[in-house]
Amino acid sequence: MQVRGGPASQQGMRRANLALVLGEIAAGPKSRAEVAARTGLTRAAVSSLVDELAAGGLVAESGPAVPSGKVGRPGTALVLAPDGPAGLGGEIGVEHLAACVVDLRGEVREWRRRDVRNRDRTPEAVLADLAELLREVSDAAGLTPAGIAVAVPGLVGAAEGVVVRAPNLGWSEVAVAAGLRPALRRAGATGLAGLPIGIDNEANLGGLAEHWLGGRPDSFCHLSAEAGIGAALVVDGRLLRGARGFAGELGHVPVRPDGPDCPCGARGCLEQYAGEQAVLRAAGLPGFVDDWVGELARRARAGDAAVREALAAAGTALGIAVTGAVNLIDPAEVVLGGGYAELGEWLLPAMRDELAARVTVRPWDDGWLTVSELGRRGPLLGAAVGVVRAVLADPGQD
Amino acid sequence: MQVRGGPASQQGMRRANLALVLGEIAAGPKSRAEVAARTGLTRAAVSSLVDELAAGGLVAESGPAVPSGKVGRPGTALVLAPDGPAGLGGEIGVEHLAACVVDLRGEVREWRRRDVRNRDRTPEAVLADLAELLREVSDAAGLTPAGIAVAVPGLVGAAEGVVVRAPNLGWSEVAVAAGLRPALRRAGATGLAGLPIGIDNEANLGGLAEHWLGGRPDSFCHLSAEAGIGAALVVDGRLLRGARGFAGELGHVPVRPDGPDCPCGARGCLEQYAGEQAVLRAAGLPGFVDDWVGELARRARAGDAAVREALAAAGTALGIAVTGAVNLIDPAEVVLGGGYAELGEWLLPAMRDELAARVTVRPWDDGWLTVSELGRRGPLLGAAVGVVRAVLADPGQD
Repeated sequence: MQVRGGPASQQGMRRANLALVLGEIAAGPKSRAEVAARTGLTRAAVSSLVDELAAGGLVAESGPAVPSGKVGRPGTALVLAPDGPAGLGGEIGVEHLAACVVDLRGEVREWRRRDVRNRDRTPEAVLADLAELLREVSDAAGLTPAGIAVAVPGLVGAAEGVVVRAPNLGWSEVAVAAGLRPALRRAGATGLAGLPIGIDNEANLGGLAEHWLGGRPDSFCHLSAEAGIGAALVVDGRLLRGARGFAGELGHVPVRPDGPDCPCGARGCLEQYAGEQAVLRAAGLPGFVDDWVGELARRARAGDAAVREALAAAGTALGIAVTGAVNLIDPAEVVLGGGYAELGEWLLPAMRDELAARVTVRPWDDGWLTVSELGRRGPLLGAAVGVVRAVLADPGQD
Repeated sequence: MQVRGGPASQQGMRRANLALVLGEIAAGPKSRAEVAARTGLTRAAVSSLVDELAAGGLVAESGPAVPSGKVGRPGTALVLAPDGPAGLGGEIGVEHLAACVVDLRGEVREWRRRDVRNRDRTPEAVLADLAELLREVSDAAGLTPAGIAVAVPGLVGAAEGVVVRAPNLGWSEVAVAAGLRPALRRAGATGLAGLPIGIDNEANLGGLAEHWLGGRPDSFCHLSAEAGIGAALVVDGRLLRGARGFAGELGHVPVRPDGPDCPCGARGCLEQYAGEQAVLRAAGLPGFVDDWVGELARRARAGDAAVREALAAAGTALGIAVTGAVNLIDPAEVVLGGGYAELGEWLLPAMRDELAARVTVRPWDDGWLTVSELGRRGPLLGAAVGVVRAVLADPGQD
């Protein structure tokens, strides 16, 4: 029975209090006095901490604060510096690359997307194009990134920045972070090449974006479909990553144990009913359609009965798999995100029917199944915003 | 973007350091100098903290410490006080009641079990018997409990101490903690009636016992079968309880979506294949056998083919449901606990086959499926040990 951790220290206290003050300012413009009142710190302590944050380019003054109604000189309002450290995000898709810059407030300052068939291209070629795009958005935004994060369509292992498996790209054991640095140098972005580079699964980042920007509760399950089907499980405000970093593989949860063979080697996995290829096949369309989500949405909206039936069948399978997830994890909400968000209109009725019939041993409310407003923008937003959130969470780090 | 929490304070630091020092002593006898070396605290600070812990009856001196090899007077070894605050656990089963006392070191000092048919008895009658048993073990142990925790076979809600649903007892919305206090007073245990009383689901407590006493990794999934099938999901050392406290309901994960009707209202739930009634039925035995786990184990050991087949079929269904859990949660280990532990010999081969065939998109090693040594003792141990662990985690609380 051992409790871990080091002794509390004055240095640790100051670092924690820097984060506390910055968190209050991030929640909305405030005077020093308001920050003091809300944190319980003394006015003098707040002033000293704010000076340090301002020197680090994190906090700026923005005219007079909201009048307090009290007599005396109104304090100036403190805000997050709009020209402070930024978040640089990249996204490797099967059929596209994208990059964006968000400022310290989480606002998008640049966003570029390029259609590229990355399937079966070498990692070197893909990373060279991504480096170029990252340099472009960074130059255009004119801010200084604090770090880079890249969303990838595959399993990311415990080893830093390594994609263990991305079958839809044909990648296995690719060291993305290590490969991106020289690519950035070759693209003339030497400044970016020295930054911390993080890699994460697109479904995880989509779920985190939903948590940070989508106004979701502290515990929810975010489903997304891009090349594969993934889930991000947010529990008590944190992403559940699993013992080896592979949590959230909803696509290979068994839906019908004797169902069709799955390329993964198992049978009857959710992807055999609700994945890109399965839905296209059920709808009578060829596989590898450009923008399969958009294509299915257009056809369903136009009244294509085969497409609507295929999506309803996918919704049934999603409902069965999600019943298992709800029983195991008890999320406050289940959010249909990524490509599924655009197909919600045709997936939801069947999903709702399954959940209503099957989730019976606990309370279940139809309203707890919702659709993401971020949709397919989620993973890239999550990548970039994660960088600035790390700065906000620990502004005292070197 | 708001960071929660109050400012760090001197008082909070002392409280954290009390826990840090006590944690080192709990991990094994140590001199004051060793505690100082391991925690990074000064020798003087350690002495002052130890004095406070000794005054609270938590720490005792136990002869000379292990010789350090250095010249000088050997320090005395500090140990957890064997007569310090104790943990008092209770268990309400469908066919039994039990209670135990563990000391601060987690060692069992008293353990009593009584066969009682609690099914459809009133909560008042059950709680009166439980109060009597709690008084008996507490008197016999002669220690002062710091609190009481009770394991119950049902869903425990977010409201403190309320069993929302225990279908196997015929209970719904029973305020166990509130009912136990007057029952303890009527049993003449006025001292116990004033203690904090916690209630938790038996599967959760069995999983926590496995975490604390079973030497498991920080993230694992513990399966148990008593009246129903439950799972405890331990993630990063903490029990995943879910947004409404209902996580771990493995028994109602769909195994075959068109399978037999379940009393819960759904179809093809795991309990229809691997629950008590399903296995007894498949084995050709009448329902409601006294000690169904022991009976099945005896018959299987004696070579009863029908029982062995029934257990293999249950193992197949468990393997399918656990595949879903492994894909979603990525535990480092899956532990067969509770009643399943005694049936492992006949459940495991089929479970292993399913997991080997179905868990393919991530690493899976046969050795990650293990059997609990605590078995059916887990929930009561977890209840009592949880009380003393709360004391150890925050010895500075009032």
